[in-house]
Parts: sequence; C-alpha cells; structure tokens
Amino acid sequence: MNYQEEVKQRFLDSGIVFTDEELASIDFADFSLNRLETEGLNLIVYENNDRYCAKEMVLLPGQTCPEHRHPPRNGEEGKRETFRCRQGKVYLYVEGEAEAAIHSKIPEGQEDFYTVRHEIMLDPGQQYTIEPNIKHWFQAGEEGAVISEFSSPSDDASDIFTNPNIKRVTE
Amino acid sequence: MNYQEEVKQRFLDSGIVFTDEELASIDFADFSLNRLETEGLNLIVYENNDRYCAKEMVLLPGQTCPEHRHPPRNGEEGKRETFRCRQGKVYLYVEGEAEAAIHSKIPEGQEDFYTVRHEIMLDPGQQYTIEPNIKHWFQAGEEGAVISEFSSPSDDASDIFTNPNIKRVTE
Repeated sequence: MNYQEEVKQRFLDSGIVFTDEELASIDFADFSLNRLETEGLNLIVYENNDRYCAKEMVLLPGQTCPEHRHPPRNGEEGKRETFRCRQGKVYLYVEGEAEAAIHSKIPEGQEDFYTVRHEIMLDPGQQYTIEPNIKHWFQAGEEGAVISEFSSPSDDASDIFTNPNIKRVTE
Repeated sequence: MNYQEEVKQRFLDSGIVFTDEELASIDFADFSLNRLETEGLNLIVYENNDRYCAKEMVLLPGQTCPEHRHPPRNGEEGKRETFRCRQGKVYLYVEGEAEAAIHSKIPEGQEDFYTVRHEIMLDPGQQYTIEPNIKHWFQAGEEGAVISEFSSPSDDASDIFTNPNIKRVTE
C-alpha cells in the first residue's frame, strides 16, 4: 500500500463515515518538506467558514506535524483550536515548562525547529485546547492517531512555522 | 432500560470514545415540556468558548428537537451551526420552500409550533449548515441518530423557540 492508500485506509478504519468526495480529496500536507512519512499531516475538512472550522486528521505511526503557531490576523486573535483524540495516541507539545525527557522522537536533524517541550498526552476521548499564537507540534504514538479539530476559522496561509523552509500553502 | 440509560447506551454504541465525566453529565434537554421521548435532545458538549463550539447529539427513534432559531446577540450575528450525521438518519427542516409531504411526524397537537417544512435528509457522512436566525427543527428516523454539531458559540439562553411554553434554560 502506498502512503496515500494507507492514509485513506486509516480514515476508513476510523469508524467515522466519510463521503466518497471527502475521501477523494484528502489533504496530504507535506509542508513542502518532501518527507511525508516523518513530517506530514492528513486532513479532511468538514467545514471552514468565517466563524468556525472542523476537521478530521490522521497521523501515521510516529508521524509529526511540525511546530507552528497561529498569529493574529486582520485585527483578530489568531486561531484557537481544540484537539480531541479519537483513536491511537497523540503527543502534543506546547509552550510552557519543558519536560526533562519527552515521549516523541524529534525528526532527525530537525531539532532546531522543535523548540517547545511541554508535553500533553492524549488518549481517545481526551482533548486539549491550544490558545492563539502558542507554538505547538504533535506526533502520533506507535499505532498512529485519528484526531478531531474544532477551531476558529483556518487560514493555513497565515501559519508561522519554526522551520523557515516550510510552506504550508504553495502559491 | 430507562430513558437516561438508553441515551447513554446510544452514546456508548456510537463508536465515539467519551470520558466517564462526559457520560455522567449528558444534557437530557426536555425544553421544559416534560415529554422527553417525543420532544427532547441529548447532548455532550466537547467545547464551547467565545469563538466556537462542538457537540455530539443523540436522538432516540422519532425524537424531535423543537423548532427554534438563534437570533443576533450582543451586536453579533446569531449562531451558525453545521450538523453532520454520524449514525442513523436525521430529517432537518429549515425555512424555504415547503414540501407537500414531509417524512417526519410532527408531535401530536404541536402542529402550530412546527412551521418550517423545507426538508433536508441527512444520512451518515452528510452534513448541512444552518445560517443564523433561520428557524429549524429536526427529527431522527426510526433507528435514532447520532449527530455532530460544529458551530459558533452556543448560548442556549438566547434561543427563540416557536412554542412559547419552551424554556431551554431554567433559571
């Protein structure tokens, strides 16, 4: 199974019902890094309007969404988002007291771009809300993860990544 | 099984993982009508902050959420909400061209309080967004339904129900 098929299968195996159109338009975000299996994120956006947003996300085992923050834009606070773990396990890192040791493995050679080390572990049914403009990154446990995101509107183009090589939205 | 146990079992059977705290604090909304089995709604609120809200809702077979709208408040538009059917079937009615015949049975004797008849049928994986201040009501099909709601903030106290006897929030 190739990468895209494996991701699709995980959405199918999640117990969540998706339409064929949704499954055909999964966003396989590679952050322009070309190493999807280590740094990548897979999304189905249910709704994104000028007031709120909701998505379902799949991470393969050990896959990492790189560190970023959601700055203020158009005179409004940055995006606030709630992550709710549905399947598997996710390790979320945010600003705050750093752990002496974290459970995740930072992608090799990328240590400079993963600067926050305050760890939140989410099992299925657990959730955490990330306040606007707080740096964060997250990595799935060894079984991968399915995570719901509820948030204020998403505008990927305004996200600021710690790794300056990342472009979330290609122009 | 009594009503509350049946509702809880349906949340448990949904395939969605909830915490014990969430299952212990299900909101069995009876709209102060005292006929929960016909007019009622059962909710677990994941998150409700000043920017967005997300909930999971259970309806028993044929159970109906009475007609209401979300008016502007504090100088802001009323609540906008997206319903996504997860299990079962839900019939949603909104303002617009009325159907000659609808699939739902309006609760007996309550016809005056169900005035909108534009029908949207939602199967699992299908969703619909209700714009602010639009009158709406919904009823589960014969197998009941599990429905996710993504929305702008919820403020039940400001909801306006067509039935003047309804109080959503008791003081």
